[in-house]
Amino acid sequence: MSIIERYITLAGSAITDYYSAKAPLNLYEPVDYVLGLGGKRLRPALCMAACHFYGGDGTSAGSAAMGLEMFHNFTLLHDDIMDGASIRRNQPTVHVKWNANTAILSGDAMMILANQMMLNVPDAVLKPVQQLFLKTALEVCEGQQYDMDFEHRNDVDVDEYIEMIRLKTAVLIAASLKIGALIGGASEKDASLLYEFGVNLGLAFQLQDDYLDVYGNSAEFGKSIGGDIVCNKKTFLLINCITNANDEQRKILDYWLTKTDFDRNEKIAAVTQLYNELNIASISKMRMEQYYQTALLILDQLSIADEYKNELKVFAGNTLFRSK
Amino acid sequence: MSIIERYITLAGSAITDYYSAKAPLNLYEPVDYVLGLGGKRLRPALCMAACHFYGGDGTSAGSAAMGLEMFHNFTLLHDDIMDGASIRRNQPTVHVKWNANTAILSGDAMMILANQMMLNVPDAVLKPVQQLFLKTALEVCEGQQYDMDFEHRNDVDVDEYIEMIRLKTAVLIAASLKIGALIGGASEKDASLLYEFGVNLGLAFQLQDDYLDVYGNSAEFGKSIGGDIVCNKKTFLLINCITNANDEQRKILDYWLTKTDFDRNEKIAAVTQLYNELNIASISKMRMEQYYQTALLILDQLSIADEYKNELKVFAGNTLFRSK
Repeated sequence: MSIIERYITLAGSAITDYYSAKAPLNLYEPVDYVLGLGGKRLRPALCMAACHFYGGDGTSAGSAAMGLEMFHNFTLLHDDIMDGASIRRNQPTVHVKWNANTAILSGDAMMILANQMMLNVPDAVLKPVQQLFLKTALEVCEGQQYDMDFEHRNDVDVDEYIEMIRLKTAVLIAASLKIGALIGGASEKDASLLYEFGVNLGLAFQLQDDYLDVYGNSAEFGKSIGGDIVCNKKTFLLINCITNANDEQRKILDYWLTKTDFDRNEKIAAVTQLYNELNIASISKMRMEQYYQTALLILDQLSIADEYKNELKVFAGNTLFRSK
Repeated sequence: MSIIERYITLAGSAITDYYSAKAPLNLYEPVDYVLGLGGKRLRPALCMAACHFYGGDGTSAGSAAMGLEMFHNFTLLHDDIMDGASIRRNQPTVHVKWNANTAILSGDAMMILANQMMLNVPDAVLKPVQQLFLKTALEVCEGQQYDMDFEHRNDVDVDEYIEMIRLKTAVLIAASLKIGALIGGASEKDASLLYEFGVNLGLAFQLQDDYLDVYGNSAEFGKSIGGDIVCNKKTFLLINCITNANDEQRKILDYWLTKTDFDRNEKIAAVTQLYNELNIASISKMRMEQYYQTALLILDQLSIADEYKNELKVFAGNTLFRSK
């Protein structure tokens, strides 16, 4: 089992240490519920592994690592209200199981709890860790705002989209790695390189998510295929399709984007057909590959042991090329 | 003009320095809007004054002070969604002027911005300031949860109510004073005393708010009289009325608490009549006076100059006895 996998397992079991189960129960029970829904625990695992790679004991970054997971779950909780999502990891979302007010306030508490967990770091790195964490947290909010703004726009270009997913998804993965590295005693140069590695990895991850929604194996991906197409989500695929379509293709696309009463499978098939005509799959794969290669180049420049570089490379590859 | 008054003026003008006016505008415009609605700026003023009283330049606590104001406004923003309030300081609330999603996400951003502002303190007190701020922030959430829980209960007792307002209102005033004192170089003993002074002051302030809703001068109080009575808000007055009413009074009270279709003035008059029969005004005043006197006793034990003690005493008195 690799070091990262060991920390994934550790993060998965350590999460229960952060259950509150205290009064007022209406505030804290939803927090425990959200944490208990599961998830890959990638962020805390990457944080602890990065600490480990720089010679620290990964568990010395444990509190900060779980703070990142707490923060991530806070964003899911509030995003689910904003998106009106009723299911998260096959379970009812908090605003459905309880109500919107509970989801708002418990989310607020999770943000604060996350911040408290980020205080348990060596004094020498307290301020830079806090600064990075809060900058990242604000960027995630900005990303979510752009994502919501994009729903009402049909002229989003690829660069804007990449910037949105950088903010909404990539910077938190990057910050997880950098915070772990700082706690482990990495130089500012190495910590920053690891951050850039994380940004590229995060971008590739999100592009893969977009790709798998259409071209993934439903059983392996864990979601039904075509969900993004059904709800007109502005993904990398749709934006490229809008940008590259000729007049006739654009007419077909607009027909499906504006149609409110449709057969789900028929819409998925029609839009996928357009994606295929326009080679969207290969445009996506090329972009993913580009971020992956950039990440590997950055990896080379790190001062950590080669075996650790290889760990990160294998982890990135396994995660990125899981269902192609 | 007293020192506290000078800092109130300063906080009122400095707030514009914290306007963002940056992209994404849908995230940051509501933040600026909320900050621009005004307010007494008591928390930042008390924070800067406390710093001043311990020999520091009050403005060296400026960023933290405005962080407390930012946090306070964040709680108002999210509370307004939860309470379904459409007006705040005579202007439409954010979830009315924009929408609920905007209010949720802009509130999240304000919480993070507040935290960033709290980082600008001397390194020596960074950790205790962060710990106190986050502990307080979580307590304010707990207070809001209890307040919402109380809406669905008719058996809330006075002690529970006091604990709720301690969490929801008093601890933030107390923390404002203590954080300023820590930045100004106060001893832990003095800073803690000032915190206790703030708790007692905050409790008295909230009891006065409850009192003025019924017995205040509408023009001076700035709200219409009886708002709490109309919406059955569980105030110190109502809880004492429920606790002390005899069977007949309880029947009248229950009639008004459960009646959904009523004349506003008739309900206010009827419930006020019960309050008068049960001497609720004097019970409230006695409790307020008790917290005020406790606050003064604590003040005596501080090691600051007598003129500063007197400032705090006059400020407390002026604020508490403004409309009796």
